[in-house]
Amino acid sequence: MKRFKVAVVGATGAVGRQMLAILEERSFPVSEVIPLASPRSAGRKIPFGGAELTVRALEPGAFAGVELALFSAGATVSREMGPLAAQAGALVVDNSSAWRMDPEVPLVVPEVNLEAARKRPRGIIANPNCSTIQMVVALEPLRAAAGLRRIVVSTYQAVSGKGARAVDELVRATEAHLKGAPIPPAIFPSSMAFNVLADWKPAEAGYTEEEIKMVNESRKIWSDPALRVSATTVRVPVLNGHTESVLVETERKLTVADAKRLLRDAPGVILCDDATQPMPTLASGRDEVFVGRIREDLSTDNGLCLIVAADNLRKGAALDAVQIAEALLSSAAS
Amino acid sequence: MKRFKVAVVGATGAVGRQMLAILEERSFPVSEVIPLASPRSAGRKIPFGGAELTVRALEPGAFAGVELALFSAGATVSREMGPLAAQAGALVVDNSSAWRMDPEVPLVVPEVNLEAARKRPRGIIANPNCSTIQMVVALEPLRAAAGLRRIVVSTYQAVSGKGARAVDELVRATEAHLKGAPIPPAIFPSSMAFNVLADWKPAEAGYTEEEIKMVNESRKIWSDPALRVSATTVRVPVLNGHTESVLVETERKLTVADAKRLLRDAPGVILCDDATQPMPTLASGRDEVFVGRIREDLSTDNGLCLIVAADNLRKGAALDAVQIAEALLSSAAS
Repeated sequence: MKRFKVAVVGATGAVGRQMLAILEERSFPVSEVIPLASPRSAGRKIPFGGAELTVRALEPGAFAGVELALFSAGATVSREMGPLAAQAGALVVDNSSAWRMDPEVPLVVPEVNLEAARKRPRGIIANPNCSTIQMVVALEPLRAAAGLRRIVVSTYQAVSGKGARAVDELVRATEAHLKGAPIPPAIFPSSMAFNVLADWKPAEAGYTEEEIKMVNESRKIWSDPALRVSATTVRVPVLNGHTESVLVETERKLTVADAKRLLRDAPGVILCDDATQPMPTLASGRDEVFVGRIREDLSTDNGLCLIVAADNLRKGAALDAVQIAEALLSSAAS
Repeated sequence: MKRFKVAVVGATGAVGRQMLAILEERSFPVSEVIPLASPRSAGRKIPFGGAELTVRALEPGAFAGVELALFSAGATVSREMGPLAAQAGALVVDNSSAWRMDPEVPLVVPEVNLEAARKRPRGIIANPNCSTIQMVVALEPLRAAAGLRRIVVSTYQAVSGKGARAVDELVRATEAHLKGAPIPPAIFPSSMAFNVLADWKPAEAGYTEEEIKMVNESRKIWSDPALRVSATTVRVPVLNGHTESVLVETERKLTVADAKRLLRDAPGVILCDDATQPMPTLASGRDEVFVGRIREDLSTDNGLCLIVAADNLRKGAALDAVQIAEALLSSAAS
C-alpha cells in the first residue's frame, strides 16, 4: 500500500491539531508527517502515532518531497505558501478562505461534489467554510431528489471556529461571570458569556463575511450561481459544534417522510429521531452531520424546516480536508 | 389621581417578581398590592415600595375588591382563577397561554393592537408569548408601512423563560461543566451548559408549542389569520434575554433606509447601529425591543433580514402586562 509524506500547515492551531488527530485515528497511510507552524512554534513536540513529531518552521523549502499538504494557518499563509507546496508536487487541501472562490480551485465536500476535485489546475483544492459544509451535506440528498429553490438559514455557531484562544476566552468569561466579576472581551467584540453575538466582521451591504461565504460557497459547490440563499450567522456560547436552523424550499414537493427516507441513507448524515436531537454537545467529537426536527414549512409550499448540527472543527474543517485527500490519493494510488 | 387595588398572581415566580418590580419602578398608581401564590408560599415576605408585602394563598375569595389582577402562575391557574377574578370586578391581564387563543379574549401588545383590548367580554386580556411580543413590536412599523407577506423566524431563547429553576439549572450545569464534572439535567431534556437545544415540548406535525404559539399569536394580534409564518424556536445557554433572527417579506418593497427610518421612530424600539448590536446581555433589564443588523434579503424581493433582542421577562411578559393595564386603567380613570 502506498504511503504518503504529509505536511500539516498550522499544526499547532485548533484545526491543525484536529487534522493530526484525524490522520491518526483514520490510519491515513502516512510515510512521514511534518507539522509546520510559525517560527515561534518551531521545536515544539506533538504526539502522533505513539511517537513525537517536532514542529518545523513554515518556509518555502518545507515542502520538498511532500505529497499532501493540509493547510489551516489562515488565508495569508495559504495564499503565499499554497502555490509553493503545489509547485513542489504536493496535493494541497486548503482550509482557509484564500482560494475558495478562485475559479481554478475546486471547492469540495466529498459527500456532495467530489467530482469537482478532478480538475485542479493550480494543484489546490479548497475546503469550504464550516457553516457551509454541514448545510450542504444535510441538503444534498434533498437537492438531488427534488432540486433547490431557496435556502433560509440562521446559524448557532460555537466559539471554537475562532480558534483555541476564543474557546479559552469563553471559558474564562463564563467563570468570571459566574463569580460576579465579569472580564472584558479580547477576541470577541462583547463578552460571549451567556450571550448571543449576531455581528461579526461586517462585509458588504450589512452582511458578515461568514454570511457571504455561505451564499457564495454553496452556489459554487452545487454549480448553481443563481441559487437563492438567505444567511444569518450568529455566535452562541457553545464551546464546539455548530447548529443551524434551515428552511429549504425545493423545486418539487418533498414530504417529511420523503426527506427522512433520503437522509437516513445519506452518506455522512445521522438522521435524528425524537430520542436524539441534533445538538452541538452531541455532534462535538463526531464525524457525521446530525439532522433532525424535520417539519413541513407552514409558510410556503415545498418547504421543509430542519435543524443541522455538526462538529465545526472536524466535519466543518479538518475531517473534510482529510476526506478529500483520502478520496483523491486512494484513486491516484489504485 | 385614582389608585388601584392590584393582585399579582404567581408573585413568587420569575415573571411575578418582575411584575412587582415593574409596578414599583413605574410608580403604577396602587392603593394596595396583594401578592398571591400557592399555599406553600403563603406568609413569605416580599419587599415592595420600601415596605414588605405578605404573600397570601391564592383562593377564590382572594379577589374581593381587586381592580387589577396580573396573572402569571401557569395556564391551569389562569383557566380556573382568571374568570373568578374577572367576576369579582378585576381587570384581568393574563400572562399564561390559557386564554390567548380564545376568540372572546383580546391578545394585546400595546405598541401594536391596543384597540383590540376595548372589547373584552370575559373581562380578561391575554399577554402574548415572549417570543411573539418582541417580534411583533419589531415588525409592526414595517407591517404598517408595507404590509406583511411572510415571516421566517429562528429564535435564540434564554432559559429564564422556563422560570427561576431553569436559570439555576443552567448556572449549576455550567459550573459543573467547567469543573469537568457534568451533572444530569432536571428541567431540560439535556444539559444546557454550552449547548443548543432545538426541541422542546413537541406539539403538532413536529412543531413545538412555542413555534405554534408564534404562528397563531402573531396572526391573531395582526388580525391576519392567513399570515404566513415559519418559526423555529431554539433554547441557547443565555440566562435572560431572547434573540431572534427574522426574515420578513413585505407586500411592498422597503429599503434598509426605509426600515431604519420607520424603526427609529417606533414606540418601544431601539434601533441598533454598528456600535450597539442587539444582544441579550444588552437587552436584559431594559424595557425596549432592540432591532439591528437590518439587511436586504439576498434570496427574495421585498425581504429584510434583522436581529431582534429583548428582555423576555420584562417586555416579553411582565412589562407588557403592566403596560396593558396602564393604558386601560388610565383611560378608564380619565
